[in-house]
Amino acid sequence: MSIPDLTEESEFASGALYKRVALLGVGLINGSLAWGILRHGLADEVVGYSRSQGSVDRALELGFISEGSTDAAEIVKDADLVVIGTPVGASGEMAALIAANLKPGSTLTDVGSVKSAVVRDVGPHVPEGVHFIPGHPVAGTENSGPDAGFAELFEDHWCILTPPPGTDQTAVDRLAALWQRLNSKVEFMDAKHHDLVLAVTSHLPHLIAYNIVGTANDMEEVTRSEVIKYAGGGFHDFTRIAASDPTMWRDVFLNNKEAVLEMLGRFSEDLTALQRAIRWGDGDILFDLFTRTRKIRREVVAAGQAEVPKPPED
Amino acid sequence: MSIPDLTEESEFASGALYKRVALLGVGLINGSLAWGILRHGLADEVVGYSRSQGSVDRALELGFISEGSTDAAEIVKDADLVVIGTPVGASGEMAALIAANLKPGSTLTDVGSVKSAVVRDVGPHVPEGVHFIPGHPVAGTENSGPDAGFAELFEDHWCILTPPPGTDQTAVDRLAALWQRLNSKVEFMDAKHHDLVLAVTSHLPHLIAYNIVGTANDMEEVTRSEVIKYAGGGFHDFTRIAASDPTMWRDVFLNNKEAVLEMLGRFSEDLTALQRAIRWGDGDILFDLFTRTRKIRREVVAAGQAEVPKPPED
Repeated sequence: MSIPDLTEESEFASGALYKRVALLGVGLINGSLAWGILRHGLADEVVGYSRSQGSVDRALELGFISEGSTDAAEIVKDADLVVIGTPVGASGEMAALIAANLKPGSTLTDVGSVKSAVVRDVGPHVPEGVHFIPGHPVAGTENSGPDAGFAELFEDHWCILTPPPGTDQTAVDRLAALWQRLNSKVEFMDAKHHDLVLAVTSHLPHLIAYNIVGTANDMEEVTRSEVIKYAGGGFHDFTRIAASDPTMWRDVFLNNKEAVLEMLGRFSEDLTALQRAIRWGDGDILFDLFTRTRKIRREVVAAGQAEVPKPPED
Repeated sequence: MSIPDLTEESEFASGALYKRVALLGVGLINGSLAWGILRHGLADEVVGYSRSQGSVDRALELGFISEGSTDAAEIVKDADLVVIGTPVGASGEMAALIAANLKPGSTLTDVGSVKSAVVRDVGPHVPEGVHFIPGHPVAGTENSGPDAGFAELFEDHWCILTPPPGTDQTAVDRLAALWQRLNSKVEFMDAKHHDLVLAVTSHLPHLIAYNIVGTANDMEEVTRSEVIKYAGGGFHDFTRIAASDPTMWRDVFLNNKEAVLEMLGRFSEDLTALQRAIRWGDGDILFDLFTRTRKIRREVVAAGQAEVPKPPED
């Protein structure tokens, strides 16, 4: 599937792409999406659902949605684009709730970090005539909730779309244009391959970070206050990742089980080899690895993927 | 051991603390130390050694040392403070080289990330009348070499000193004052306890980061360019740590073997439990851990230890 050309001739290069966008969930990702859509004029109106009335109220107060509801089936009526932004484990149930009210010709997408499980759980509920295009913007911060979003979150980051074979090309082009006009870089991928790539670049790192922060917290000989105090030695980077939304990440691991367990097996195997090198004082093995990994950092920096997105300062 | 009071009455609160400071090694830490000493007027002159003539020349060119040499024994003559800033594994050899030329009454310190091994390797070479006070500024970046240093590196970060029992109190107070006047926070600790604390907050995180970056690089199903491209999902944080100086970190692991292996054992045990929870779909175990770790992040941020030190922009 090719990436749409957003030259001036493209019908998607300027103006609104959708009339009404309905966001299911008003947290970090959907909130940022709303701010971006509003800033770039990509839709006439953005409305939102949350199961929590407090979050709906807060999103309305912040102003990134113009209508809000705790009734998902209600809010999707008449929407041209519906974005499921709930934790991955809840997306099937969400799809079942809204299916009957989805407008023919509209597009249903999501922003979950796992794609095969979303295809499995959401797919069967999608009515004939509705374009289902799973998506995953690869960007985030450790903050969550309606206050966490900001328009720049996706800039220079990738958004992976995994449209099933046979998906309507115009619907795909339109959705891809939305992400591109948020200054995101769009890539197409098979859902299964997405899950494997992300298991390496995102899911395993998060699991490891959660684990090490847990291990440090459980030490008897080193107090918790010492761990906090000397976090500047490297630990602090892990605490940032390990502060990510617990519900979202629980669902990621439960819904990308196979790929995560595969990566985890490789990671543990490699770690055991390092452990052995340390025990036997084999400095060459350590030095060689540390030299290889340094090169990868240079490539990550060169690719512009080294920075954690930060909200603009007031 | 108490932290010196730097009120106006203290003799160390203003003016130069040392006449001549000799730095053995002119990389990130010693370079930053030199810049800080010069900025805050903490010594009359700073001189430096490197085994590489190129590094000596570069340090002289940058201007953070006023004299340089590839002869360590030569450069320490007449110095009031000598700072070993070579990788930990080389510190014993360095001490043997310079011992005969250390000035009576001078202070010998180091900036290594491991302290018991430094006490073990350097201690026996220290002549009578020279004050040996091992130290460890807990701050760093992934950059190395003479160009990597900057005066602000230590600001708001801790510097741990591990003077052996019976060390001259005035010498300790003077060295502690040096770090405090670099806006570092000073703490005293037993060398063995230091090594355990740092194994948790720094050594294990680095080892894990090196390992995961290595594992990702070795994947067959996911290409290296995909890993680089989607690093924004969490992996990028690990690449930063895994870009730290290979020689320095090899030496850290080989010289803090016992504590690192102990931490690694606990980490692997905990990771196996997480792996089992994922395999059996036990979301509660995951959710509980992720909720606990999020709290720790808040404490790290509150303690001001969440930021990676960055050189000021030009």
